[in-house]
Amino acid sequence: MTEKKNIKGITAEKDEFSEWFTQIMLKADLADYSAVSGCIVFKPRAYAIWEKIAAEVDKRFKKLGIQNAYFPMLIPERLLKKEQVHVEGFSPEVAWVTHAGDSELSERLAIRPTSEAIMYDSYSKWIRSWRDLPLRINQWNNVVRWEFKHAVPFLRTREFLWNEGHTVFASEKEAVAEGKDILDIYADVCENFLALYGVRGRKTEKEKFAGAVFSEKIHYVMPNGKSIEGPAFHHDGQNFARAYDIKFLNKDGQEDYAYQNTFAISTRILGILFAVHSDNKGLVLPPLIAPEKIVIVPILFEDSREKVLKAANEIKKKLGDGAFLDSREEYKPGFKFNEWEMKGVPIRIEIGPKDVEKKQVILVRRDNGAKEVVKIAEVKKRVEKVLEEIQSELFVKSRRLYESKLEKTANMKDLKKMIKDGKIVLVPLKASEKVEDILKEETGGAKTLFVSGFDVGGKKCIVSGEDADYLVWVGKSY
Amino acid sequence: MTEKKNIKGITAEKDEFSEWFTQIMLKADLADYSAVSGCIVFKPRAYAIWEKIAAEVDKRFKKLGIQNAYFPMLIPERLLKKEQVHVEGFSPEVAWVTHAGDSELSERLAIRPTSEAIMYDSYSKWIRSWRDLPLRINQWNNVVRWEFKHAVPFLRTREFLWNEGHTVFASEKEAVAEGKDILDIYADVCENFLALYGVRGRKTEKEKFAGAVFSEKIHYVMPNGKSIEGPAFHHDGQNFARAYDIKFLNKDGQEDYAYQNTFAISTRILGILFAVHSDNKGLVLPPLIAPEKIVIVPILFEDSREKVLKAANEIKKKLGDGAFLDSREEYKPGFKFNEWEMKGVPIRIEIGPKDVEKKQVILVRRDNGAKEVVKIAEVKKRVEKVLEEIQSELFVKSRRLYESKLEKTANMKDLKKMIKDGKIVLVPLKASEKVEDILKEETGGAKTLFVSGFDVGGKKCIVSGEDADYLVWVGKSY
Repeated sequence: MTEKKNIKGITAEKDEFSEWFTQIMLKADLADYSAVSGCIVFKPRAYAIWEKIAAEVDKRFKKLGIQNAYFPMLIPERLLKKEQVHVEGFSPEVAWVTHAGDSELSERLAIRPTSEAIMYDSYSKWIRSWRDLPLRINQWNNVVRWEFKHAVPFLRTREFLWNEGHTVFASEKEAVAEGKDILDIYADVCENFLALYGVRGRKTEKEKFAGAVFSEKIHYVMPNGKSIEGPAFHHDGQNFARAYDIKFLNKDGQEDYAYQNTFAISTRILGILFAVHSDNKGLVLPPLIAPEKIVIVPILFEDSREKVLKAANEIKKKLGDGAFLDSREEYKPGFKFNEWEMKGVPIRIEIGPKDVEKKQVILVRRDNGAKEVVKIAEVKKRVEKVLEEIQSELFVKSRRLYESKLEKTANMKDLKKMIKDGKIVLVPLKASEKVEDILKEETGGAKTLFVSGFDVGGKKCIVSGEDADYLVWVGKSY
Repeated sequence: MTEKKNIKGITAEKDEFSEWFTQIMLKADLADYSAVSGCIVFKPRAYAIWEKIAAEVDKRFKKLGIQNAYFPMLIPERLLKKEQVHVEGFSPEVAWVTHAGDSELSERLAIRPTSEAIMYDSYSKWIRSWRDLPLRINQWNNVVRWEFKHAVPFLRTREFLWNEGHTVFASEKEAVAEGKDILDIYADVCENFLALYGVRGRKTEKEKFAGAVFSEKIHYVMPNGKSIEGPAFHHDGQNFARAYDIKFLNKDGQEDYAYQNTFAISTRILGILFAVHSDNKGLVLPPLIAPEKIVIVPILFEDSREKVLKAANEIKKKLGDGAFLDSREEYKPGFKFNEWEMKGVPIRIEIGPKDVEKKQVILVRRDNGAKEVVKIAEVKKRVEKVLEEIQSELFVKSRRLYESKLEKTANMKDLKKMIKDGKIVLVPLKASEKVEDILKEETGGAKTLFVSGFDVGGKKCIVSGEDADYLVWVGKSY
């Protein structure tokens, strides 16, 4: 299945999105299929990026006062069933452990699809008074959701990695206020490290998280025009507190249910990162998240080998940690160029005997292929500058991609055509599950993505013709 | 179950080990029982220490060229069964997933008790030639082993966290050589951060890892005299390569099976850390691993409140990140002293109005209770010095504990008594599973811990009376 060191490049065009994406995953050595249907191997090149995302998010969580912990992965069925809406949302996808060794268990155990049930059972024991609040705990772990749809590496896999923050507050106001801090953290990392332009917005009642009062997510657009959800924040009000009996004595000595939030960023963001920036030569990575930022490829001939390698090594030393030297003897430079383009190293530096004489190198940008001659004396400064340029230009490109997909209309016929053309469309809508069901059917599968605003300017609902309640973004999505 | 902010202290003596240990786990806020039998919650105070251990080990792995990845947690039954010895070692403890949602799966899936089976299935696809070797991949993840023995927080839980390194080499020599590097890393972190004295040694044939050629582990001694295994390195030779078909073309163009190693440190090391250093007042932590190193407790009276708080804050600023100020109004100083002793903060600094006048503080060591007066001008320097002293003295104490349990004999009657007294005993033994079975029975459950050496000096096997093959440490163990 994996074609190692394939230099044939991508044989699908970016507009045949799904085939193109899968080829990049395999050929850039990011993921591989596994023996378990629907689960992938996160290979080192992809996992290193996840580690970096997690570290950046985690650092910011800790500054906010959120602490990490680890709760059991297995959840007794009776616990999972305590919150009815929640269990109905997840139970079709739960993987059940029924046996241990040769024994049948007396109660089935769910592999966590998310950890509300097991964590809140502990919270109900730990929280007694306002002194115990806020309680802000996070986990970095794996979850299993046994979806029956076709798996796509990173974007939809039955097991994935994420953080799940679960916080508890004494008041609704404090709980809701946390939302901005959390989404700011996710947005900071996704914009500034991953160079991904996304838009925050609240889900409709129909599309919100099972058990939440409201869900707010950061939304991205894939090259094929499909919308995709990134990091999420859910305010649960007192819903779970009632189900799991999380009560506390407030400062007035009154007993009250606590207010809760949950929030997450998952390895799905890797799929968004890989899809948005890459091209037909393979992976493109923003420098700040790329495990290797600069590859130095020496052009070696018998008679000048030593001289060129010496210069290449000196340049590597100058450039520091982000640079590596590909001095393998068994591959030709052309092969190496293709390999590191496929794997998304942001800058390539070529150096041959003539370059050594002229005290220069050739610098090639992965994102746009631009080549330039740079004096060795200036290479460090120039590389730093170009890395910054790539980083900021990828973000601008990502924003342009997003904005190129946007349309608006109040007319169903137009909407259908726009959806067919892979657009994301702002429409006036009535707040109603029924309306959303019809919308989905009429448009061949488009869903409400998020609410844009409540100032409908007197417009009528695009589905029902009644007064609209809000303007909503609609589109096909993952 | 949890008694929060309990200031009654530990009500068991350290020699009633099990009860004492459980009380520390709960009262120092390290762990809690969960709704899943045999699984615990790793609470933030314990998890933060695990994070630090993992970060230190991981940093060293990466310097060695080991890369992190993530493989699926679920393993199809047919894959697990490929290596016969391995599967027999683990199958009594495997948790089986049989259903997803309402559907029965066509094949049972094991939750990984360890990942050889799923990883080596990928390795067999990825490895083709010597160019692909060495392949050195590591995972930080959770595993489930459904043991039916009584669970003890950290020491024996059905789900635990660990690293599992799985490396592949072209030659036996390279593979075996990795063992020292890996065990050096584990020993470095455990000695220098956790202040734990341990001894490396190879397991006997009977006690080695299921599927390995040999197993080498770092062994620790608990306060009750029981031996316990910490980090482990297993050399698997070509055993798994044959079972999972991991072949490669060597430089001579010949096909050969690869040589493999696996290695791990698990959250069990937390249990060892907590048990070895702590006392009847609660947790004791070596400063280098303690999340909080210094607690400043101001002694507040109405008329001098502001002045004392101001001085306390200035001291906190001087001491930097490791220090925190407990200025809670709702608790008395005595309560705070007990709480932070229970939670193992290495140094307490007390400051009251008289101290402010005299420009001094009281510094109290958690490990030995020693008190001293320190001038505020010198507090930073003194604290640094005392933290270093605590760190190195805890290691010395741990070494003394270990050595205090050692005995040797060539006489079965003596051995029985020594084992009864909670000793670890060096005995001459014949290399035989049968002999080990008898040894275990005669001593009421003592096992071979590790081989000390092969120079038996003509001694006879303590069990069979035949010529001994080696000197082996024997004792009760976790």
